[in-house]
Parts: sequence; structure tokens; C-alpha cells
Amino acid sequence: MTIPEEVDTPEILVDRDVLQRNIDRMAAAVHAKGLSLRPHVKTHKVPEIAQLQLAAGAVGITVATLGEAEVFAGHGATDIFIAYPLWVGPRQAERLRRLAAATKISVGLDSREAAQAMGASLGDAASDFDVLLEIDSGHHRSGIAPGAVVDVAHAAARAGLRVSGVFTFPGHSYAPGMPLKATEEERSALTQASDLLTQAGFEILHRSGGSTPTATLTGDSAATEVRPGVYVFNDAQQLELERCAPEDIALTVAATVVSRHEGDDVIPRRIVLDSGSKILGGDRPAWATGFGRLLDYPEARITALSEHHATVVWPADAELPPLGERLRVIPNHVCVAVNLVDDIAVVSGGKIVDHWRVAARGKNK
Amino acid sequence: MTIPEEVDTPEILVDRDVLQRNIDRMAAAVHAKGLSLRPHVKTHKVPEIAQLQLAAGAVGITVATLGEAEVFAGHGATDIFIAYPLWVGPRQAERLRRLAAATKISVGLDSREAAQAMGASLGDAASDFDVLLEIDSGHHRSGIAPGAVVDVAHAAARAGLRVSGVFTFPGHSYAPGMPLKATEEERSALTQASDLLTQAGFEILHRSGGSTPTATLTGDSAATEVRPGVYVFNDAQQLELERCAPEDIALTVAATVVSRHEGDDVIPRRIVLDSGSKILGGDRPAWATGFGRLLDYPEARITALSEHHATVVWPADAELPPLGERLRVIPNHVCVAVNLVDDIAVVSGGKIVDHWRVAARGKNK
Repeated sequence: MTIPEEVDTPEILVDRDVLQRNIDRMAAAVHAKGLSLRPHVKTHKVPEIAQLQLAAGAVGITVATLGEAEVFAGHGATDIFIAYPLWVGPRQAERLRRLAAATKISVGLDSREAAQAMGASLGDAASDFDVLLEIDSGHHRSGIAPGAVVDVAHAAARAGLRVSGVFTFPGHSYAPGMPLKATEEERSALTQASDLLTQAGFEILHRSGGSTPTATLTGDSAATEVRPGVYVFNDAQQLELERCAPEDIALTVAATVVSRHEGDDVIPRRIVLDSGSKILGGDRPAWATGFGRLLDYPEARITALSEHHATVVWPADAELPPLGERLRVIPNHVCVAVNLVDDIAVVSGGKIVDHWRVAARGKNK
Repeated sequence: MTIPEEVDTPEILVDRDVLQRNIDRMAAAVHAKGLSLRPHVKTHKVPEIAQLQLAAGAVGITVATLGEAEVFAGHGATDIFIAYPLWVGPRQAERLRRLAAATKISVGLDSREAAQAMGASLGDAASDFDVLLEIDSGHHRSGIAPGAVVDVAHAAARAGLRVSGVFTFPGHSYAPGMPLKATEEERSALTQASDLLTQAGFEILHRSGGSTPTATLTGDSAATEVRPGVYVFNDAQQLELERCAPEDIALTVAATVVSRHEGDDVIPRRIVLDSGSKILGGDRPAWATGFGRLLDYPEARITALSEHHATVVWPADAELPPLGERLRVIPNHVCVAVNLVDDIAVVSGGKIVDHWRVAARGKNK
């Protein structure tokens, strides 16, 4: 894909054909495993992309916040899981009640206290929602230890909530050598929690897991559905984890070389691009080679990122690109990059064919 | 400052009184040094705050992009420096010409090639702009080596541009033990470049430097003006660099405890807040203690940040805050945090007294 002439930089470009291929491939792989696909739309926040995912067979969507749920419900989503341990006060309860009037809403829960707050705030509406208990499968962020899940389930039931499943996010799969281990821990945690709940008399209909690195490794012995997000676009993290190939990268940031320096023994040989952290996002895991990658220059390294500057150190044996040249940058973490822009340019055959609004950008509440 | 009851989390709060004190203090310190203050408004992107800075004696404002310049010009700014090595093609030239019709505009430049592109694209309008040559004073991002500045100045003059100054960003001042060294390198680089240009016959009216860590260390032997940005709010980086005190923090993110875990020998004792990287920003310099700080719990450490989760490890001898409690989080880098929201709540005396729109949010182009 070349950068269309009419693009001013920095700008997010999405290759429509690669996007569709990524959507179709994940749908096929997940269905072949006997699982349902409930993609996490916090990655793209774009209703048009959710429609493509649903058209490819997704059973519903996953969101992280009430605000995201409101945006996607407003664009026709009819089955939404808020995969987050919501703290529900009166204002959140009112928003949940309004959402549930037209949409099937499931919510996450990971403590007795949150169950009590949710039940008290929702009142009679509490039983309108499916509640999925969040299990810690090794990421050690939120989530209940699998062995402690029955206590929380009883608290939820006492609060009038309908416990119908368990979910986990194997976030520790985002590191080299971790996807298989994280998948096995996910299987073990979901199975243990689900068995304990069943023994305690709960009917567990949903076992929800999966991330982009693990979604196609999970089998139906562990889960009934998976919730990958990043796979629609892929990003430099997935590339460096070898969970995708360069031709699977659907989203890049078009950037211009604004500064160029041959360097010397002390000062690095480098170019500076106008794609800083205000469009790439600042995420940089310790194992990453830098703050993103250049799609067409795999040996280049983004060694530093300021708000409007990406400093790119160049291989010693390759000529520096000229000033004014336009390059395609792959963000490290695509979910935070998309959240920085109001719309994205959709490209096919080297031309801009559409603009999509990032309708749920900034919906953090 | 307590978190007003009507705030839903996560939400950015600005303490109006601390903000005003920060603005007044920087203005007084810079004027006492005999320097002009041209604050960088990419930090806040809020016209109301620029007005407070101008009312306190700023001579103009600094921006990073054409889009920011357009927003602030539209809100009445009359003297704007785009402190960036702009690559000016026909579309950028048209925007610059439109800006210059009502506003004094200065632009940055760091190469012969950019001078040629800018001159060719601006045509007869080239001489309507002040051009400041960017000097590399040790940050090794963009900028000309001080000794090479005359070549670029001659190229700019040949392209019809009016070279009237030099500028530098001592970005390497953002690390422990670096502010004094970076200030000295800034002095040396600006002086050398300015002297060489004067000897070559250029009239150098502006020597522009300074960052929040160095602005009050710079003297008028080095610079005629400084361009700090972060000082209006301060942030966890400035706190950890000891360039501000906790009572100088004007901006915090109100967050709710959504998950709480006592941990064990393997799993950390922690809480999870709903303030993730989509409101705090993902910046984390190697020397920082974590992904931000808690204003009221200086011993707590934000050890991990996902998009909607901040994992906070708690001191062993202190009780974990209860679920549902609301805490104030200080972002590591305030400029990227503000850019994630559409508006900020202004607080005084524990009450919300205003909402300001982040009018230049996302204006990366």
C-alpha cells in the first residue's frame, strides 16, 4: 500500500482488504475450534468495523466501559458484554437500565462488595443482566482466584444478580514465549472456577476467554467463547510476538521525515518522523525493540518517542530516507493509537475509499 | 482537594487555584531572569489556560503543529511560534498563509531541504514569517549541530525566508541529575549558533530555549525567551525530578477502586483503579517509579497500566483502600493525558466551577 497523495501526516490509514481478511481468518479459526467469537471493540471503537465482525459471524461484542456500550448500542449492537469489574452506583445503574431496554447486556464482577453495590443500585432491574465472574488466570490484574469464586457468586445471588458465567483475560500472553503457557493457565482457571460453581448449584452457560495471542490456541474444553480485539488490525507487538506477519498489518500511521542526521561516533544516525506519541501511543513493553516498527524498513528502530517526534535509528549499511519522504509506521499497541484520532482513512488499491469515525474514542466512563 | 460527588470516574480534574499559582510563579521567575515567557500550549490545548498565561505576561505562545496554531489563532492568539521543523508542501503553505493574515507566525527549521521546500511552497509569502533555526543542544532528536547552522541559514535566505533566531529544546533535562547540565549545554549551543550567525551577517533577535525543568535555571546570557509547558499543571515526572512539590500538582485523574486483592507470597498485594492508559497516557521513563503516582498515597506504586486498569501495589504496612473508594492519580506526563479527553473539569474549593474544552485535542497535523 502506498500512501495516497492527498493524505497529510501524521494520519491513521486502514487497509480495507487486509482488515477484511483478518476478520474472516479469525472468525474461521475460532469457529473451527467450536467456539463463539465476541470481539473486543475497544481496539477499534468504530461501528463500521463491528458490523463487519458481526457479519462474519461474531455472536456479539465486548466493550470495556459503559460509554463504549452506549455508543455501540446506539449503532445497533444487540448483545454486549462489558468485560470489566464495574463499580455501579446510582448513575451507572441508570445508564445500565437504559441500555438493557434495547440490548442484551452482560457485565463483569470480581468482588462481593461490587456485587452488593451493583445489586443495591440496580434494585429490581438486577436480574435483567447476565453477570460473569472475572477469574484471575495468571495476569494478576483484576479477577477472583479460581478457588474463591463460589463466595462471590453467593454474594451476587444474594444481591439479586444472575450469575451465568465466568471470564478471564490472559493478558500475560502478551510476551515472548507466553501464549501457550497463558492458554493452559486460562484453561485451568476457567475449568476450576466453572466446576466449583456448577457443584455449588450455579448454571454456568458462558466460559469466556481469549486474547489475540491466545484466541486460536484455546479449545472448547476451556471456553465457550473468546474475546480477541487486536487481530482486526494487528500491531508491532503482535508482529514481534510472531502472532502475525507483515502482510497482516491493516493499520499504519502515515508519517513524514522532518529531520535527518548522519550522526557521528557519539550522536546516533537517525531520522525523525512527525508521528509522535500523540498518534502512535506511548506503550512500550520491556521486550519490544522500540516504540513501534516501520512497515517497509524492518531493520529500523524507533528508539525514542516525544509527543510529535519519532526518533528512528537507521541501519549502518542502509541509506537514510530523504527529508520529506513519507513512511508507514506500525504502532506498538493499536488500541491506544486509534483512541487518539477522531477518524481513520480507509484505503484500498492505493486510494482512500472511505473515512470512518472513531465513534467511541475517549469513552472511558 | 476532594473529588466532587458528581464526578464519574475516570475524569480529569484541574484545581483552578493551583493552576493560577503555577502560572503566576513561572511568570515571575522568568521575568526576574530578564527573559520573555512563551509557554508551550501543547501541554493543555485549552484556550482559557492560554488566556491566563497571556494575562500573566506571556509574550505569545508556542505550539507544535499547524492544527494547534489554527485553534489558538481562532481563539485570539496574536503571536504564535510553531516550534517544529515543519515540512511545508502546498497544502501546509496555504494553511500558513491563512494563519499569517491575522496572526504573527514564526516557524522552526532544521535543514537546507526543508528551507527549500518551505520557500518554494510559500512563494512570495515566504518573507511574512520569522524563521527560527532549531539547534541540537544535546537531546539528539531534531536540530542542527550548532557548528553547522550557517549553512542552513544561507539556504533559508536563498529560499526567501527571514532567519531571525535560533531555538532549542533541552529534552535531556527530563531525567534525574540532568537539569543543570542540560541548561549549560543549552547556553553553550544557543550562544555558539547565535554568534556564528551574527558573524555571517544574520540579525539574531530571538534565542529561544527552556523546558519546565530548566526554564528557571536559564539566564539571559543564553536565551531571550523560554518555552516551558508542563509547569501549568505539573505531573509525576516533575514530582519525581523534584522540580515541583505535591501541592503544585494542579491536574489529577479521579479514579475508583474497582478491584482489591490482599495477595500472597507470589501474587502482589494490590488494588486496581479504573484509570488506565486511555486516560493517564502510557509514558513511563526508565527512571520513573511507575506509571504515575497517587497524590494522597505517596508510597503506593502504579506497577502496570492497561487501557482501563491501573494496577497499584500497596505498602505492606498500610491497609488497602476499600472497593468503591475514589482516589486522585497524577499522570506521569500531563501533556499526553489531557490529549485523551474532550474536556476537563475545573475545581475550586471542592466544587466544580467550570468545564473547559480541550479545543486542540488531537490536532496532530
